[in-house]
Amino acid sequence: MLRMSTLFLRTLREDPADAEVPSHRLLLRAGYIRRSSPGVYSWLPLGLRVLAKIEAIVREEMAAIGAQEVHFPALQPREPYEATGRWRDYGPNLFRLKDRKDADYLLAPTHEEAFTLLVKDLYSSYKDLPITLYQIQTKYRDEARPRAGLIRGREFIMKDAYSFDLDREGLEGSYQAQRDAYKRLFDRLGLDYVIVSAHSGAMGGSRSEEFLCPVDIGEDTYVRSAGGYAANVEAVTTPAPDPVPFDDAPAPHVEDTPDAPTIDALVSLANDRYARADRPWTAADTLKNVVLAITPPEGNRELLVIGVPGDRDIDPHRVEAALSPATVEPATEADFAKEAALVPGYIGPEALAAAKIRYLLDPRVAPGTRWITGANVKDKHVFDLVAGRDFTSDGTIDVAEVRAGDPAPDGSGPLELARGVEIGHIFQLGTKYSEALGLSVLDADGKQRTVVMGSYGMGVTRVLAVLAELNNDEHGLIWPVQVAPYHVQVVATGKDEAILIAAEGVAEALTALGVEVCLDDRVGPSAGVKFADAELLGAPFIVVVGRGLATGEVEVKTRATGAVEDVAVADAPAKVAAMVKAALGG
Amino acid sequence: MLRMSTLFLRTLREDPADAEVPSHRLLLRAGYIRRSSPGVYSWLPLGLRVLAKIEAIVREEMAAIGAQEVHFPALQPREPYEATGRWRDYGPNLFRLKDRKDADYLLAPTHEEAFTLLVKDLYSSYKDLPITLYQIQTKYRDEARPRAGLIRGREFIMKDAYSFDLDREGLEGSYQAQRDAYKRLFDRLGLDYVIVSAHSGAMGGSRSEEFLCPVDIGEDTYVRSAGGYAANVEAVTTPAPDPVPFDDAPAPHVEDTPDAPTIDALVSLANDRYARADRPWTAADTLKNVVLAITPPEGNRELLVIGVPGDRDIDPHRVEAALSPATVEPATEADFAKEAALVPGYIGPEALAAAKIRYLLDPRVAPGTRWITGANVKDKHVFDLVAGRDFTSDGTIDVAEVRAGDPAPDGSGPLELARGVEIGHIFQLGTKYSEALGLSVLDADGKQRTVVMGSYGMGVTRVLAVLAELNNDEHGLIWPVQVAPYHVQVVATGKDEAILIAAEGVAEALTALGVEVCLDDRVGPSAGVKFADAELLGAPFIVVVGRGLATGEVEVKTRATGAVEDVAVADAPAKVAAMVKAALGG
Repeated sequence: MLRMSTLFLRTLREDPADAEVPSHRLLLRAGYIRRSSPGVYSWLPLGLRVLAKIEAIVREEMAAIGAQEVHFPALQPREPYEATGRWRDYGPNLFRLKDRKDADYLLAPTHEEAFTLLVKDLYSSYKDLPITLYQIQTKYRDEARPRAGLIRGREFIMKDAYSFDLDREGLEGSYQAQRDAYKRLFDRLGLDYVIVSAHSGAMGGSRSEEFLCPVDIGEDTYVRSAGGYAANVEAVTTPAPDPVPFDDAPAPHVEDTPDAPTIDALVSLANDRYARADRPWTAADTLKNVVLAITPPEGNRELLVIGVPGDRDIDPHRVEAALSPATVEPATEADFAKEAALVPGYIGPEALAAAKIRYLLDPRVAPGTRWITGANVKDKHVFDLVAGRDFTSDGTIDVAEVRAGDPAPDGSGPLELARGVEIGHIFQLGTKYSEALGLSVLDADGKQRTVVMGSYGMGVTRVLAVLAELNNDEHGLIWPVQVAPYHVQVVATGKDEAILIAAEGVAEALTALGVEVCLDDRVGPSAGVKFADAELLGAPFIVVVGRGLATGEVEVKTRATGAVEDVAVADAPAKVAAMVKAALGG
Repeated sequence: MLRMSTLFLRTLREDPADAEVPSHRLLLRAGYIRRSSPGVYSWLPLGLRVLAKIEAIVREEMAAIGAQEVHFPALQPREPYEATGRWRDYGPNLFRLKDRKDADYLLAPTHEEAFTLLVKDLYSSYKDLPITLYQIQTKYRDEARPRAGLIRGREFIMKDAYSFDLDREGLEGSYQAQRDAYKRLFDRLGLDYVIVSAHSGAMGGSRSEEFLCPVDIGEDTYVRSAGGYAANVEAVTTPAPDPVPFDDAPAPHVEDTPDAPTIDALVSLANDRYARADRPWTAADTLKNVVLAITPPEGNRELLVIGVPGDRDIDPHRVEAALSPATVEPATEADFAKEAALVPGYIGPEALAAAKIRYLLDPRVAPGTRWITGANVKDKHVFDLVAGRDFTSDGTIDVAEVRAGDPAPDGSGPLELARGVEIGHIFQLGTKYSEALGLSVLDADGKQRTVVMGSYGMGVTRVLAVLAELNNDEHGLIWPVQVAPYHVQVVATGKDEAILIAAEGVAEALTALGVEVCLDDRVGPSAGVKFADAELLGAPFIVVVGRGLATGEVEVKTRATGAVEDVAVADAPAKVAAMVKAALGG
């Protein structure tokens, strides 16, 4: 039993200035965490208890599928990360440092390299496989924009698991086992989730899926169709339309389009001056050429132009994912000034080829399609420019925005869009890491086989934040009983000695019944402050011992529903313990 | 129950080349840890289990004295460490890094600053005190010479606790509570220890004590007297002798001492040519002047000469501790070449004063004592040079070697010397950190009072290593049952199916009795390999199910004593469970 009079805690009545989302505000106000530096947090006693409970559930579910726990240093030498390219590819997201002998180290963002080398160190035969190892460990990522408290931090706790199999079929099994464990784990935590196809990013590998928790404050956008398609918007593919016959298409013709550097102005002008017979021009008839500057890791900054139908913008997240590990930014005025071929508002494909600027097209710009686009001269556009006949590109890139109503790529119906927070990400890595670091085993025929790997991440501190984000009201946190720091808060109100004694009695009886109790035995604060603190801290059940004691009753409140019941003091412990057990599902 | 056939483990028959002490060798060979980089280790499943058990005991003992657990980031911003001077004072021992915005961070070696700021952040009244907080957390120290595996690493786990009191008296109580908790904790772990007075080093503060575990491989030397004095050799003080009357002393006289640049040569020559009437000259009659170069943090390297009686060397550890945070090295030939006043082998006090070289004296060079020392000219020494009459110094420094038989400073008898490993260090910090960081509270009279602090460190990974160092034999580890990864290893030998079934039965029955079992169910390895592995891994009890089964018996071995007993299969689980319980002290 915890006596609140001794607890290292100071609750805050006001919202902290720099906390932008409810979970962040409440975890700060209720004294679960404190900010140490941007995106880096210290854990106070209550926060640490919730964290420990989540970790215990993770350990149980990992053990249930035979995954074994190990623990790696956060401080990792450069060499293995150099061998896999991640030292470079992570760019400024990696915390790098030197030791006193000038050797390079990093604070690991994930540990693929270390796990691969450990298995290489210990194992050499197919008989040793399959094996899945995991750790619950502190990770570091020097985020450009840490935000939302624990949701996107620079120091955070992850469960990261890694599977090692002899072949792809084995990997499929290990991957499914982790996938199923994640489902059980999130179900136990009462977390809603969607499993979506994902982009593998800097991790590499052939296939990956994310577990997204649907929350408005989520940074990830995902799509779903009624027919079952689900993907992170970064991973949505646009099927290339069939080529269009263009034998009857007129030759391209340049027209005056004064003061039409924007798509809207262009469409309006085209309908005014160059109206077509069958239907009005729309933005989808125009080809918009967007100029970006990309910088590959340790490479030179160069311009890239992406052509998309004028009715769509480019989605910055999709561009970043598609071009990763390069960094991407919009071209600057200086870029335009330096490159005479680029006439702002009037860029067309022909000048790009001549100026040797890399040019990529949206898949919708299929061979034979006809476009209005820039003529590379101020106040002039070209009409009836046919893809494949009048211009070509250096390839396709699928980074235009995805919209609600777009067809799912698998034909399963129109897409809906929603936002979510990534709480898990599982990867079929294949042999990227085992090849780079030389992890192979002898198979049954005595031949060396490169080991096939998977990696399985789960943000433990992020899961805690998402739980707080999903379970709160205007009064404070409402923890699911599985992870609540204490199951029950017993609040003694008033100065009456008898009340405190009765409250102690209830708390002790509950403790004896296996219930975790926080007893608010503070003498100073008023009943109002104690109620407010109880609701802010978020114990799933609150027992108030106060005025009702005169008639032999205490008040039992279920935090989530707000339901309040008067219960005889003598019956309270058994009754509340039963409520806790029922909530725990036991 | 753990089935060894599934365990991620590879034991090594040979000693790893770079492992210099038994604990390091055995922890590597038995697959508890693997080296990641110098002084940085990865934890394998068995190691992690032992670690978790030690941590659980630490948590219990901390909770028992009301210390509350929190958790700080390893990644700490520079500013607070700048304010206390530790950013500078830790010198190259600190891992420093920059984030993407060029802000300075460090990987914390301990967290005095962070705890101080957290308490300042939350608390402001005397009513909030006393409070003791702790964490079990990964620490970083960029050791110049990491050694002995986990004994001196660069990344390691510490329990660090911090107490906050209103006054010195309160601190005394908090300090005693931690001190007593350490005793209970080490007693529970079966660790022998000596509590010695210690030097506070870079931590600062007024008083500190170390818990040293007496082990030959220890880096610390400590002294003890029969009368109860105990101190780290770095903290031993030499009482200054009373001044000696020198009215009858002859005037100093310079004598030829050709080819006598060493103390031995000088004493021998003095006895030959300048014999004294009462007794022979000894090395203790000479004053040896040792030239060092010291570099304060962010300061300039400068020479320092220390004068000690010629029969004693300077103890490098005592010098380092006394001059910390400055770094110390012997003067080089280049230093001598540059400084004409220093005539190697013939250095005397007079030239030092003239050359403005700082000169410190051993306390034994008391006023009135008479010395033979260098005359600052090659092949000449001065005799009857009287301290306080003929020369002075810039102060005293107590860094001469301490020898067995030296008197204890408190008069409690002659000193013995021994070696040990520091497993705990507790400090009365006083107000060093609270002053630097502005931690004060309002007292009962409404006045601001600077909070008085203590800090209490315990090396968790080091304790694990020391346990391994103390508990092993030529066959492998012998864990105390309190921290053993498994209480019992059940070994099934032979290919007979019946044996495996019986072994499973024993393992399951033991598990049902609450015993932690590792079942060696591997099919490939021979009985010999399995025995060897069982002894190497170090479970306190080993049950062998093998040939004896024919007569219905299994063999029960107590690893520590080597005692072996044949027990009926049916009786084995109850009997072994009783042995485990007895060993656990329950």
